[in-house]
Amino acid sequence: MTVREIAERLGTTFEGDGERQVSGVATLEAAGASHLAFVNNRRALREAHASAAGCLLVCVDFDNSGGRTIVRIKDPRAACAAVINWVQPPPAAAAGIHPSAVIGANCRIAEDASIGPHCSIGDNVAIGAGSVLHANVTVYHDVKIGARAVIHSGAVIGADGFGMVFQNGRYDKFPQVGRVSIGDDVEIGANTTIDRAALGVTSIGDGCKFDNMVHIGHNCRIGKHVVIAAQTGLAGGTVIEDYAVIGGQVGMGDNVTIKSGAIVGSGAGILSNKVLKGGGEVYWGTPARPLKEYLEALASVARLPQLKKEVEALVRRLAELEKAQGE
Amino acid sequence: MTVREIAERLGTTFEGDGERQVSGVATLEAAGASHLAFVNNRRALREAHASAAGCLLVCVDFDNSGGRTIVRIKDPRAACAAVINWVQPPPAAAAGIHPSAVIGANCRIAEDASIGPHCSIGDNVAIGAGSVLHANVTVYHDVKIGARAVIHSGAVIGADGFGMVFQNGRYDKFPQVGRVSIGDDVEIGANTTIDRAALGVTSIGDGCKFDNMVHIGHNCRIGKHVVIAAQTGLAGGTVIEDYAVIGGQVGMGDNVTIKSGAIVGSGAGILSNKVLKGGGEVYWGTPARPLKEYLEALASVARLPQLKKEVEALVRRLAELEKAQGE
Amino acid sequence: MTVREIAERLGTTFEGDGERQVSGVATLEAAGASHLAFVNNRRALREAHASAAGCLLVCVDFDNSGGRTIVRIKDPRAACAAVINWVQPPPAAAAGIHPSAVIGANCRIAEDASIGPHCSIGDNVAIGAGSVLHANVTVYHDVKIGARAVIHSGAVIGADGFGMVFQNGRYDKFPQVGRVSIGDDVEIGANTTIDRAALGVTSIGDGCKFDNMVHIGHNCRIGKHVVIAAQTGLAGGTVIEDYAVIGGQVGMGDNVTIKSGAIVGSGAGILSNKVLKGGGEVYWGTPARPLKEYLEALASVARLPQLKKEVEALVRRLAELEKAQGE
Repeated sequence: MTVREIAERLGTTFEGDGERQVSGVATLEAAGASHLAFVNNRRALREAHASAAGCLLVCVDFDNSGGRTIVRIKDPRAACAAVINWVQPPPAAAAGIHPSAVIGANCRIAEDASIGPHCSIGDNVAIGAGSVLHANVTVYHDVKIGARAVIHSGAVIGADGFGMVFQNGRYDKFPQVGRVSIGDDVEIGANTTIDRAALGVTSIGDGCKFDNMVHIGHNCRIGKHVVIAAQTGLAGGTVIEDYAVIGGQVGMGDNVTIKSGAIVGSGAGILSNKVLKGGGEVYWGTPARPLKEYLEALASVARLPQLKKEVEALVRRLAELEKAQGE
Repeated sequence: MTVREIAERLGTTFEGDGERQVSGVATLEAAGASHLAFVNNRRALREAHASAAGCLLVCVDFDNSGGRTIVRIKDPRAACAAVINWVQPPPAAAAGIHPSAVIGANCRIAEDASIGPHCSIGDNVAIGAGSVLHANVTVYHDVKIGARAVIHSGAVIGADGFGMVFQNGRYDKFPQVGRVSIGDDVEIGANTTIDRAALGVTSIGDGCKFDNMVHIGHNCRIGKHVVIAAQTGLAGGTVIEDYAVIGGQVGMGDNVTIKSGAIVGSGAGILSNKVLKGGGEVYWGTPARPLKEYLEALASVARLPQLKKEVEALVRRLAELEKAQGE
Repeated sequence: MTVREIAERLGTTFEGDGERQVSGVATLEAAGASHLAFVNNRRALREAHASAAGCLLVCVDFDNSGGRTIVRIKDPRAACAAVINWVQPPPAAAAGIHPSAVIGANCRIAEDASIGPHCSIGDNVAIGAGSVLHANVTVYHDVKIGARAVIHSGAVIGADGFGMVFQNGRYDKFPQVGRVSIGDDVEIGANTTIDRAALGVTSIGDGCKFDNMVHIGHNCRIGKHVVIAAQTGLAGGTVIEDYAVIGGQVGMGDNVTIKSGAIVGSGAGILSNKVLKGGGEVYWGTPARPLKEYLEALASVARLPQLKKEVEALVRRLAELEKAQGE
C-alpha cells in the first residue's frame, strides 16, 4: 500500500511522498524507509525526529517543519492498529478443529471456529462463530462461549469453583454444578482461569478483555467491556459492571460489587462485600479507597518524620516555658 | 426425590408439601417450583421471601409464617451440598487413562483413577484410587499422589524448584532431585504449580484444598486439611501445619512456619523465616501481623491528618504563650 | 564415588574415611551412611551434629572435633550442586520431538533439543541446541529460543500482548505482530507467560532465570542473568538490565526501567515509567522505594500510637500553662 492509499482509507490527508510504498509497520526505533510508525505522545515526538520511518502517522497538530512524509489523524495509535491489519495482519488461525483436540459430547462448535492443538473441550460446550481457542486450552463441560472469542493457551474455563463444607474435621467439596457463560468478542489471556458457578452461572459479558493469569472465581458476574489486567484475582460472587477497568494484581474478596465505569488501580485489595462506586472514580491501595484518599494517606506517612520532629520541638519549648513559669 | 425423602435422608423434618418433587438445586434467585434452595444468612433470608423455590433448606429458627415448604436443619449449606450430590450430582470423570494421555515408565495408576486428555505423567509416578486428573495436567517424574485427589487442568506437579548457584558471573541450577508427595483427598486448582524438592520431598498432607494458581515452592511441607486460596505463593522450605487457612494472593518468603490453625488474610506478605502462631490467630497485612495490630496501624494512619492539625494548634498556642511570657 | 574422589574432583581435601562410598546426596535430616549432605549456615551447623550423613560438605572453618568424614570447601552449597550432578544426576530429557507434540511450519529445532508431550510449537520458531521444553509448553509463531533453555510445563511463549484501542464504545485489539526472542541458558518456570511484542520484540537475555507464573508483558526487554521469582508481573515495555534480581509477587506498571544490579523485594509495586537505580540498591514496598526509606516509614507508623500519646500529653501540659497564665 502507498502512503496515499493509507491516508485515503483512513479518511484523511498526507504530506510528502504519497507514492511511497509501506510494506510494514514498526516502532519508531526499528522502522526503515518502507515502514510506517506512529507518534502519539511527547516521548514519541522526540524519537520521531531520529526515526528512519518512511511514513509517520501523527496527530493533527504535528509540526512538520522537517518535511517528513506524514499522515495526520486524530488518534494515531488507533489508526496504526487499522494500518497493521491492512499491511501486516497477524496470521489467521486455521478454521476447524485440530486433530489432536479432544471434543466432548453434545458440543456445538461453529464451523469457522478454530480449536488449536491439544485443546480439551468437555461435554455440552458451545463455541460461537469465528472464535479462536489457541493450543492447550481446556474447557470443562457446560460452558458457552460466544462469537469471535480469542482464548489464549493454557486458559482453563469451567474448572470447579473453590467451595467447601467443613464438617467432621475435614473439608468436603460443595458440589460445583453450575456453568460458565462467555459473551461475544471476549479475549481471555494465557493461563487465565474462569471457574464454573456452584449453582447458576459465572458470566462474562460481551467485549470483555482479560489479560494473562487472571482468576475469576465461581458465580462472578462480569458486565460488558470490562478490562482486567494480568494476575488479578476475584473470589466468588463478585459483580463487576460494564466498562469497569481493573488493573493488574488486584485482589477481590467474596461478593464485591464494582459499579459501571469504576477504575481500580494495580495492586489494590478489595475486602469482601465492598461496593465501589463507578462513573470514573479511581480506587487504589489496600484496602482500596478513592485515589485522593490513598495519596493523602501516603503523603501523611511520608511527613511522619517531620511531624515527629515538630512534636519534639514542642516538647522542648514547652519545657522551657514550664521552667520559666516555675522560677 | 420428594421433600419428605430429602428430610428423612438428612435426619430432620419438613413443613409443607412433603410429596413435592425436587428435581434440582438452584440459587434463591433462579430456583423454580421444582427446585430446592438454601438459606443460610441474613441476605439470603431477605431473598428467600421473593424466591420461587419449591422447597427451602433453612436454619432451625427460620420464621415460616409465610407457610413455605421447608426443611429445617442446623447447617443448611452443608445439607445442600449433600442434596446436590443426591439429586443433581456433577458428572463423574470416566475411570481410566484417556488415550491421548502420555504415561511414563514405572507408574502405578489405580484402575479407577481418571487421567484426562493430554495429561502427561512422568516416570515413577503413583496415583491412588479414585483420583481424577482433569485435562492438560502435567505430573513430572517421582511424584506420589494419594487416593481421591482432584487435580484441575493446567496444574503442574513436580517441576523443578527455583534454586540456583551464582558463580563465575552466571546462575547455574542447583539440581532439583527431590520428589513430591501428595496425600489423600487433596484438591488442587487449575494452573496451580507444586515444585519438587531440591533434596528430599515437597509434601502436601491429606485433605488439603488449594485453589487456582497457587504456587508451592520446593521443600515446602504442608500439613493436613490446609486451605490455600487462589494466587498465593510459597517460596522454598515453608512449613504450614494442619488446619491452617491461607487467603488469596498471600506471599511467603523462604522457610516460613505457620502453626496449626493459623489464619492468614488475603494479600498478606510474610517475610522469610517468620513463625506465625496458630490456634485461630488471624494475621493480616505486609509484613503480616495479628489482625488487631494491623487494624490499629490502619486506624493510626487514618487519624494522621487530625493529628497533624492538633500539632499545628499546639504550635500556635505555644507561640501565644511564649509571646505573652516575653512581654 | 568415594569421598576421596569427590574431594579430588572439587580440588580440595577430605578428613576421615576417604574410601567411603557416596551413593547419593540428601538433606542433613534424611541423609544416611551412604549419603553426602552439605552444611552452609548456622542452622545447618546445629543439624549437622545430629545428622547420620556419611560425608559432610562443609566450610573451610568447620570445627571437626567430632571426627566426622568431611570435605572442606569455600562454598559447600555450590559444591553440593556439582556433587549431585556426578552421583545422582536428574533424569535427562530425551532428545527429540515427542510424537504427540505439534510443530508448525518453518521451524528450526536443534536435533538434540527435547520437545515434550503435548507441546505446541507455532510457525517460524527456532529452538537452540540442548534446549528442553517439558510437557504441555505452548510456543506461538515467530519465537526464537536459544541454546540450553529449560522451559517448564504450562509455560506460554508468544501469546498476544495486552494492547487495545477503545473506540465506538468497545475495545479492539491493537494487533500484536511482534516477536519473542529468548537468549541462551534461560530457564522459564511452570505456567509462566511471555507475551509477544505489539511491534518489534519482547526479549529475554542470556542466563535469565524465571520462576513459576511470572508474567512478562509485550515489548519488555530483559537483560542478561536477570532472576525473577514466582508470580511477578511486568506490564508492557519494561526494561530490566543485567543482573537485576526481582522477588516474588512484584508488580510493575508500563515502561518501568530497572537498572543493572538492582534488587527488588518480594511484593513490591512499581508505578509506570519509574526508573530504579541499580548497583545493588534494594527496593521494597508499594510504591517501591529504597529499603531504608521503607523501613523508616514502617517504623514511623509503628510509633504512631506513641506519638499520639505524646501529643495528648502536650495538650494537657499546655492547658495547664495557659490556665496558670490566665490566673
